Amino acid sequence: MFELHPAFPPTSHAVGELGLCHVRLQDDGRYPWLVLIPRLAGLTELEDLAPADRARLMEEVVLAGAAVRALGEAQGRRVEKLNVGALGNVTPQLHVHVVGRRAGDAAWPGPVWGAGAPEPLAEPSAALAMVRRALGI
Amino acid sequence: MFELHPAFPPTSHAVGELGLCHVRLQDDGRYPWLVLIPRLAGLTELEDLAPADRARLMEEVVLAGAAVRALGEAQGRRVEKLNVGALGNVTPQLHVHVVGRRAGDAAWPGPVWGAGAPEPLAEPSAALAMVRRALGI
Repeated sequence: MFELHPAFPPTSHAVGELGLCHVRLQDDGRYPWLVLIPRLAGLTELEDLAPADRARLMEEVVLAGAAVRALGEAQGRRVEKLNVGALGNVTPQLHVHVVGRRAGDAAWPGPVWGAGAPEPLAEPSAALAMVRRALGI
Repeated sequence: MFELHPAFPPTSHAVGELGLCHVRLQDDGRYPWLVLIPRLAGLTELEDLAPADRARLMEEVVLAGAAVRALGEAQGRRVEKLNVGALGNVTPQLHVHVVGRRAGDAAWPGPVWGAGAPEPLAEPSAALAMVRRALGI
């Protein structure tokens, strides 16, 4: 039985569900940033997924990338590079970050993880609506 | 026509070829660390690959993870968590890092990218042989 790790809700907003993953919007206005969490119990590494689910995850990562681009565009901050990462050093439940980056952003050209303090979204509803539309959910 | 970006050779050693990717061993003794570079021209994002090639890339990432685990084991530093990342903020040619991490390593629990200075491998040949064996190439 899948249960979301309790580390996610304090740092992100629920977007909705894709075929495999629960999708969350990171609560950080510095970057358009989605997190995908496959809804299967007991996963910590990509290898814990069956090959067919790994392929689905890859496709959902690409879809999330398009949503991140749409969100950046809507916010007047066009995404120049997507950063995709599955780390899990702090929160072990398997999850994939999809982050929209641009030259001069708060961590550029370094990675976003662990870089500075998040800037919580004042009003996430417009961003959530935009992301749902881009994901078709 | 695929050409390897010139940023890779000074920082990594050629391991060999998988079905889709050129594989390199990062020249940094702090972590067991492979880099996969799909051998197709003009790629910067995952979305630039066809879906079938994205699925192949995912499987090669999983295979590289097993090789990274084998390398860590051989070096007496068992991998506790794999970190997988496609960033490309500095080197735009599409590439995927597969890094073996453990509590207390040089960047733990932060990401490895941009963290401290690499420690070049004094003698990479044993590591290269181990990785080739683990990859079956």
